[in-house]
Amino acid sequence: MTDPLNAHQGKSTKFDLPGSPFSVGWTRPKRVILADENNPLSLECGECLAPVTVEYETYGTLSPEKDNAIFIPHALSGDAHAAGWDADWKKDNRPWRNSKPGWWDEAIGPGKTFDTNRYFVICANILGSCYGTTGPWETNPSTGKPYALDFPVVTVDDWVRLHIRLQDYLGIDKLLAVAGGSLGGQQALAWAIRYPDRVRSLVIYSSSARLSAQGLAFNAIGRHAIFNDPHFKEGNYYDFTPPGGGLELARMLGHITYLSYHSMEGKFGRNFQNGSKPCYRLNKEFSVESYLEHQGRSFVQRFDANSYLYLSRAMDYYDATTYGNGDLSKACSVIKAKLLLIAYSSDWLYPPESTRDLAKAILANNKPVSYIEIPSSYGHDAFLLEVAQTAPFVRPFLERV
Amino acid sequence: MTDPLNAHQGKSTKFDLPGSPFSVGWTRPKRVILADENNPLSLECGECLAPVTVEYETYGTLSPEKDNAIFIPHALSGDAHAAGWDADWKKDNRPWRNSKPGWWDEAIGPGKTFDTNRYFVICANILGSCYGTTGPWETNPSTGKPYALDFPVVTVDDWVRLHIRLQDYLGIDKLLAVAGGSLGGQQALAWAIRYPDRVRSLVIYSSSARLSAQGLAFNAIGRHAIFNDPHFKEGNYYDFTPPGGGLELARMLGHITYLSYHSMEGKFGRNFQNGSKPCYRLNKEFSVESYLEHQGRSFVQRFDANSYLYLSRAMDYYDATTYGNGDLSKACSVIKAKLLLIAYSSDWLYPPESTRDLAKAILANNKPVSYIEIPSSYGHDAFLLEVAQTAPFVRPFLERV
Repeated sequence: MTDPLNAHQGKSTKFDLPGSPFSVGWTRPKRVILADENNPLSLECGECLAPVTVEYETYGTLSPEKDNAIFIPHALSGDAHAAGWDADWKKDNRPWRNSKPGWWDEAIGPGKTFDTNRYFVICANILGSCYGTTGPWETNPSTGKPYALDFPVVTVDDWVRLHIRLQDYLGIDKLLAVAGGSLGGQQALAWAIRYPDRVRSLVIYSSSARLSAQGLAFNAIGRHAIFNDPHFKEGNYYDFTPPGGGLELARMLGHITYLSYHSMEGKFGRNFQNGSKPCYRLNKEFSVESYLEHQGRSFVQRFDANSYLYLSRAMDYYDATTYGNGDLSKACSVIKAKLLLIAYSSDWLYPPESTRDLAKAILANNKPVSYIEIPSSYGHDAFLLEVAQTAPFVRPFLERV
Repeated sequence: MTDPLNAHQGKSTKFDLPGSPFSVGWTRPKRVILADENNPLSLECGECLAPVTVEYETYGTLSPEKDNAIFIPHALSGDAHAAGWDADWKKDNRPWRNSKPGWWDEAIGPGKTFDTNRYFVICANILGSCYGTTGPWETNPSTGKPYALDFPVVTVDDWVRLHIRLQDYLGIDKLLAVAGGSLGGQQALAWAIRYPDRVRSLVIYSSSARLSAQGLAFNAIGRHAIFNDPHFKEGNYYDFTPPGGGLELARMLGHITYLSYHSMEGKFGRNFQNGSKPCYRLNKEFSVESYLEHQGRSFVQRFDANSYLYLSRAMDYYDATTYGNGDLSKACSVIKAKLLLIAYSSDWLYPPESTRDLAKAILANNKPVSYIEIPSSYGHDAFLLEVAQTAPFVRPFLERV
């Protein structure tokens, strides 16, 4: 199992154990059906989907006024288990759950950035994922077999539309905040542009209005590796060996984009796997090679290749400028939420300059936005590894919403 | 066939046709056996290799004093055809040759950066390649079958040791210069460190003393894709379908590292392949995806997967610091050549800071070195695409050697 906190960058991660006053403690995921035949979910691609189940977790207590809810959308390979310790991780057939704390435990808990003494925090798994919410692994009611590639192409807007239903189900008219990193940050932006009356503020980490051409290219190669895998079988592999080689390669590549040139240099450099001299062989020579292979193999144990195709494609498609016919300022004109944008200096997947472009587009509408660039060598993953550092900015921001 | 000038970045490339006064005109590759059973080539890995054939080309005229020779080592996927037009490209079974000018034609020719009116320019294919010099595709005399993975692991130093034999064969005691980019630049450095009395100057483009951890990681993933290809068969695919899918993926990935964030943004952005609206599908949607696939497929037509494994591994292994027991300054202390180092601002495979590190190590020995950083958006490929811009620096440098 990989560490959901991505402690892979060699940073020592402080764990708040379940009994700690800083931990939300033991958690249990919930599941709810939010679309059925009578009320299917309309998707951006034109199709309708039903039934749709959503897996989610909550931490803290919803106020009687229901005005203290913060929604935390997760990134590409995340799940609903954002904080605390999964009480049932051994019980169900849930290979992605493990004995480690949630993926943003460093940010969510009593006294933390998203303080569960004050706020009711919700995290829900996204549509198309393999972590409890409906996805390509689920049975297609019209065939009795897994959807596989018959699953519709989903988008960030679709995720938000579904999670609006979750808020309705929870009785929350307006969120205090949506806060997320990477693809989670793009979901936050989508909330404010598509449902401006449903959210009062956004905290966006390591994200921007759209992925770069370079980012599209990396995602395309990852999917290409999955498509090329002889076990892929057009996605109909659920009764057979899954396309692990392709998914492993996609993850290895993705992983490089989550780190930075200097963090890799610092952690691995050109160290050999064994000893100080080269063995003159074509593989398994440098530490960084075996590390990446380990990361890739671990990911295959916990993720579904079809989900990877769908979620990376949703990441590709998201482009906030389309709501302004190519003009990001125009797209942002409908936003009513206050914004706090946080970039990390060494992020090259969503580089600070792309986050600044978003800040400028919001400013152009004379709307309130703060932009903070945090010096970090951890690259894109800094939003997972150096989130505690943002508490001094995020906590007062949330207090003033 | 891909364009050997890598005009893929959308730069309009000026071709000097064979009859032009600026072209070296029609060329023909030469081949010579430089190692045999009685005089095998000793390799860094400890093995010996024989026979070894080298393919090379020459342009211009060797002076009676044999003091005007410039050797041009090529990079990962290059060949001996550095300038002019291959007269025999249709005649032989040489799938890598084509009707286009040599890969550095913009730099080599009458009146160009490497002026063939003054200099005798030599380019030779490297050991392990599939372009005429002995490599894994060639028959192993001890088995009668292609070497495949029985080919020894070769290194940059091995290439130089072999090309020293070529200079001996040509009767050249001391080169006026070794000039190359990327892996070619590392060969140049190896000439000066290992054979300080055989070269009077170096012109190094887009290169440094060693590849970064990030660069090692990208190469590892490319090889991983080849190893994973079901057609790979442990390298013994020469009588069957080659592992094109894996090689294609390796090239797609490598290609991203040759471009830059901003050049990809400028050339492709988020353009769709067809029309202005998304088709909601998992592949073939964005221009950059189909472009990369085209690049990958073209490469498969002209390159051998086993060669890719060997050459990318040689790129990994090169580390000039090893000759100073980890101290680059110490490694550079033996250099007698004058150096001109050229970096391009947007190169992230061998970033300018790594080239500057090399310059500092040479300076620390009070040896003559010039460093030039050229503003460019073309990334690593700038040494191919923006080499003409270096003439004002390189020509006077060579005149003063």
